[in-house]
Amino acid sequence: MKARVTVTLKTGVLDPQGKAIEGALGGLGFSGVLGARQGKIIDLDLAETDRAKAEADIRAMCEKLLANTVIENYSVEIKG
Amino acid sequence: MKARVTVTLKTGVLDPQGKAIEGALGGLGFSGVLGARQGKIIDLDLAETDRAKAEADIRAMCEKLLANTVIENYSVEIKG
Repeated sequence: MKARVTVTLKTGVLDPQGKAIEGALGGLGFSGVLGARQGKIIDLDLAETDRAKAEADIRAMCEKLLANTVIENYSVEIKG
Repeated sequence: MKARVTVTLKTGVLDPQGKAIEGALGGLGFSGVLGARQGKIIDLDLAETDRAKAEADIRAMCEKLLANTVIENYSVEIKG
């Protein structure tokens, strides 16, 4: 079963990488960029075939390893 | 107008960060992980209000800065 985990910084958390992207886009002549925030995705391939069990497993992975829940939000999308 | 750009490594391109995640998950006792690939997202906030124009702008940004099209694929999702 395939799934995608999306990890984004919480609102209010400073994002220097996003700021760098915003600045670089401005420097390249893209003037209408009001903001940029960077996050990450992790595409997982799991042996588990039960959808609910897979989602529960992935949430546990996020809490333990994939996301820092103090400063990051995560969402899980099961692709089947 | 808000948009999300998703950048992923092309199939066949080595992904050491994904391999590290896979190994770390195994080490934490998550045994059913067959594979992990890491990618990134960039959430953009644009002044442009025309959907088609915004998408064209973002594709240009991807080609010039956000993605390395030799080794990465990108997709653009306009959120309105």
